[in-house]
Amino acid sequence: MRATVLVRPKQGILDPQGEAVETALEHLGFSVSAARVGKLVDIEIDATDPAEARAQVEKMCEQLLANPLMESYEVEIHG
Amino acid sequence: MRATVLVRPKQGILDPQGEAVETALEHLGFSVSAARVGKLVDIEIDATDPAEARAQVEKMCEQLLANPLMESYEVEIHG
Repeated sequence: MRATVLVRPKQGILDPQGEAVETALEHLGFSVSAARVGKLVDIEIDATDPAEARAQVEKMCEQLLANPLMESYEVEIHG
Repeated sequence: MRATVLVRPKQGILDPQGEAVETALEHLGFSVSAARVGKLVDIEIDATDPAEARAQVEKMCEQLLANPLMESYEVEIHG
């Protein structure tokens, strides 16, 4: 079963990479008012039940994939 | 208008960060058979038409956000 985890810096947390992207896009002539950079993790997980897969992946987020102080996460299960 | 860009390493491209995540998850006791790490960029873009916004963001991907040799990208427009 395939899962995608989206990890984003929480609101209020400084995101220098996002600021750099925003500045670079403006220099390229794009009209952008904000940019935030996070990460995504695609995982192939040994589970047959989507609810079980989601529970597993949420545990992975809490233990390894996201820093709960600074990042929020979102889990998508693709079946 | 808000857009999210998902950038992933292409198939066949080495992804040492993904390998490290997979190993770490296995050490934590999770049953995982693959992990790939990419990035995501949330952008607030000055456009009112979703099709126009998508065209703009695809241009950003080609010019800055993704390396077309090594990465694929996916654009989501949130309206």
